[in-house]
Amino acid sequence: MKINLNADLGESFGAWKMGSDEEILPLLDSANIACGFHAGDPLVMRNTLRLARHHGVSVGAHPAFPDLQGFGRRRMNLAPAELEAVIIYQIGALAGLAKAEGVEVTHVKPHGAMSNMACEDRKLADSVARAIKAHDGQLILLAPALSPLADAGRDAGLAVVEEIFADRAYLDDGQLMPRSREGSMIHGADAASRHVGAMLAEGALISHSGKRLPTPIGSICVHGDGPDAVAIVRQLRQSLEADYELAGLPELTNRSR
Amino acid sequence: MKINLNADLGESFGAWKMGSDEEILPLLDSANIACGFHAGDPLVMRNTLRLARHHGVSVGAHPAFPDLQGFGRRRMNLAPAELEAVIIYQIGALAGLAKAEGVEVTHVKPHGAMSNMACEDRKLADSVARAIKAHDGQLILLAPALSPLADAGRDAGLAVVEEIFADRAYLDDGQLMPRSREGSMIHGADAASRHVGAMLAEGALISHSGKRLPTPIGSICVHGDGPDAVAIVRQLRQSLEADYELAGLPELTNRSR
Amino acid sequence: MKINLNADLGESFGAWKMGSDEEILPLLDSANIACGFHAGDPLVMRNTLRLARHHGVSVGAHPAFPDLQGFGRRRMNLAPAELEAVIIYQIGALAGLAKAEGVEVTHVKPHGAMSNMACEDRKLADSVARAIKAHDGQLILLAPALSPLADAGRDAGLAVVEEIFADRAYLDDGQLMPRSREGSMIHGADAASRHVGAMLAEGALISHSGKRLPTPIGSICVHGDGPDAVAIVRQLRQSLEADYELAGLPELTNRSR
Amino acid sequence: MKINLNADLGESFGAWKMGSDEEILPLLDSANIACGFHAGDPLVMRNTLRLARHHGVSVGAHPAFPDLQGFGRRRMNLAPAELEAVIIYQIGALAGLAKAEGVEVTHVKPHGAMSNMACEDRKLADSVARAIKAHDGQLILLAPALSPLADAGRDAGLAVVEEIFADRAYLDDGQLMPRSREGSMIHGADAASRHVGAMLAEGALISHSGKRLPTPIGSICVHGDGPDAVAIVRQLRQSLEADYELAGLPELTNRSR
Repeated sequence: MKINLNADLGESFGAWKMGSDEEILPLLDSANIACGFHAGDPLVMRNTLRLARHHGVSVGAHPAFPDLQGFGRRRMNLAPAELEAVIIYQIGALAGLAKAEGVEVTHVKPHGAMSNMACEDRKLADSVARAIKAHDGQLILLAPALSPLADAGRDAGLAVVEEIFADRAYLDDGQLMPRSREGSMIHGADAASRHVGAMLAEGALISHSGKRLPTPIGSICVHGDGPDAVAIVRQLRQSLEADYELAGLPELTNRSR
Repeated sequence: MKINLNADLGESFGAWKMGSDEEILPLLDSANIACGFHAGDPLVMRNTLRLARHHGVSVGAHPAFPDLQGFGRRRMNLAPAELEAVIIYQIGALAGLAKAEGVEVTHVKPHGAMSNMACEDRKLADSVARAIKAHDGQLILLAPALSPLADAGRDAGLAVVEEIFADRAYLDDGQLMPRSREGSMIHGADAASRHVGAMLAEGALISHSGKRLPTPIGSICVHGDGPDAVAIVRQLRQSLEADYELAGLPELTNRSR
Repeated sequence: MKINLNADLGESFGAWKMGSDEEILPLLDSANIACGFHAGDPLVMRNTLRLARHHGVSVGAHPAFPDLQGFGRRRMNLAPAELEAVIIYQIGALAGLAKAEGVEVTHVKPHGAMSNMACEDRKLADSVARAIKAHDGQLILLAPALSPLADAGRDAGLAVVEEIFADRAYLDDGQLMPRSREGSMIHGADAASRHVGAMLAEGALISHSGKRLPTPIGSICVHGDGPDAVAIVRQLRQSLEADYELAGLPELTNRSR
Repeated sequence: MKINLNADLGESFGAWKMGSDEEILPLLDSANIACGFHAGDPLVMRNTLRLARHHGVSVGAHPAFPDLQGFGRRRMNLAPAELEAVIIYQIGALAGLAKAEGVEVTHVKPHGAMSNMACEDRKLADSVARAIKAHDGQLILLAPALSPLADAGRDAGLAVVEEIFADRAYLDDGQLMPRSREGSMIHGADAASRHVGAMLAEGALISHSGKRLPTPIGSICVHGDGPDAVAIVRQLRQSLEADYELAGLPELTNRSR
């Protein structure tokens, strides 16, 4: 059985560095690359694409609201036509740089507040799916498991891969527990590996209270920042490799690259 | 004999409107569309692409320095790697939106200070050409006649179309007379038509002092703003249609679309 | 009895022009000047301040969310500390340029989505009031009549002037009728003058359905854009001058300048 | 004899952290605070001002070209009126936040490419001095020793404090050796202390080749980033305290605060 490890990369901007892309990238199957609206600038994007190509990692666009100062984490209200144009612009910008590097952009994963809002509001989720499809119906949508965004992608005819989070606890309704609540973060490589392993074994999200919410799970999202990120991802990858075949998103969806 | 009429379009931004795109576009063969760095936002870009498709006008990317406040007219020093990434990003962003609209981006024309600097500095011109080629070697470079930028494009193996300006006077070395000098602007449709007609007939730039500088001329750049822009472009087009076949840039270079 | 006419000015940005500041400014008592986050750039701000000084119009800061592309009209979620810093930054920037021009910034009026949100959410309104007071407790808050923003200002100890809108219809709860609804806009100088005159005479907002909502009214907000703006403001001013003394905001609040 | 230690601070932006402000600030006499155009956002600025107040460090504005992506290090051509407005805007924004924190902005030091250009081009230097003076003639200009910028400040009637760099080598004409050249950086606390000590003792810049260029020296600029920055600044401060009285810029110029 195939499974995928993904993380958000290319989040540096100009003189500001963020993350340990060089160390984390070789441990991933897929990278979601910031497109300049919340992080990333054209040169950071190009360098990240080169790194991804070097390590054979499949790449996706990580579009966000136009909000550098807020790192795309501040909710913004964009009219649907505007939101769709903003998403296509970002996919196109990354695809343009990818083409220059001989790489293909194979998936899209919305970032931050845009993702959160699309996981609550089906209309907004439909805009996201429509934008992706308008640009390229072959793109894979990487979306949180059991989210309206995943539904919107499927209904639009996109290939959808559902992801779970290795280091975050879930509520009984399948939403992520807000970071502000005690117990929302799962600390350490052992706990993260157990959390992920249990959900994969049961084919379900497992909430903080122990509730099972059955769902397909195709990918596991890890975080590339934090002092122990590299160690955690390494151990998680090793524990997964015992039971699963790790693969890029195109391989998961039988999409040829 | 084929000739092309081009203008810079899509220069509105958010709530700010600029130009008369709806009126000028039907009179053009090719449109250079702002890509969000000096003007244009994703929605303006998409709407401009739709308009261009509707009127069968070939479209090009009009990349610029990242300088909204200065409208891309302020000189900036970017390292070559940065400049190249910035150009590819913008071409890609426009190409992404164009793909969503079923349109193909077929040429690139640098804007403002980026163009001026590339017409003075061959190294910078080489960066521009390298960026275009890295993204897509089939793209046409639209460059000022007799400029180092045109040379750089040709040496890089790009199809190059040389343009002249309908409403600007030339110096004896083929440079545009600076706007600050008396006589730099050619006013009115009659004067512009005569200026263009003479240069096309002789296959040469004709300077303010009367000097002939032989050059291939493939396209004529007109300005879409100004109170009389539409009237001037209409008359210029009519006077050209008597003697020339007006065509999009791909037709000019025998590039299939 | 004193009354004040205010409008939003300085909304050009770089190469993009908006509004007819030169014509409208002499007809105003107070100008709310964009501070660079939704419109206005440092040079536009400085030129607008010069114009205001020339015409003896009192000036206020018109701070907004950091959203040039959306003209500050898109709702954004900023944490209170961030919102307060963003507001103080903008007031300070305008005050800095005003000081260089020998002008004093005497009021603050939040713009667009920031104002709308502060008229719905008392906590956000408190942040706005706190920011203004932290910078300068002598600043006047210009706020919509009957709004939580006006309450927040008063509770913070700020001088508050309530404004009504000359060209907008009100709902029975005192909110502006959304622009999307039929009848939300009041067209023409006659209708606007009658609308304003009736509310001033009764000392109350008068809703679309005829309901009276008593409130102090200190200022009337007019719009400087639109093809007939100048004519409307001129007629409104003339009709007011028959019965009221028109004055700057500092005179209205007995604040010395 | 009084001497001043200064560094550039507040260079984080949104989610991106830069420098070790908390550790370096207690070792300084004066801090140059980024104003949002090349680094710093309103909240970072406010927090940095609080930190400076806590440690009794005098604060100055560190204005730059509008170029976040390039960290203000890319040369840009701004017309004089635009440059002056851009500088005043930034000083005002910082002064606004400083006022909210009960702190006074007492000096200005241009950043990056703006500073470099003002150290080569006297006209540009005059614009910088004119902008500072237009805002507040009591502000101190902190400028590189022997620079046209220092001259422009003095000629404009500003109090000027000349600074030398602790970790950079000088050319025989008093310019900094470009970073690209071997030997341009002075490494380690011992070498920096000796370099600074010799220049202070002789009252002159001492070039790489040993040439003496007499100049008043009022302040020493150190860098807050780099792995050893804190250790270097601590040792430099200790070695200076043996022979000099370390003081804020207002004390150096007999300006009352």
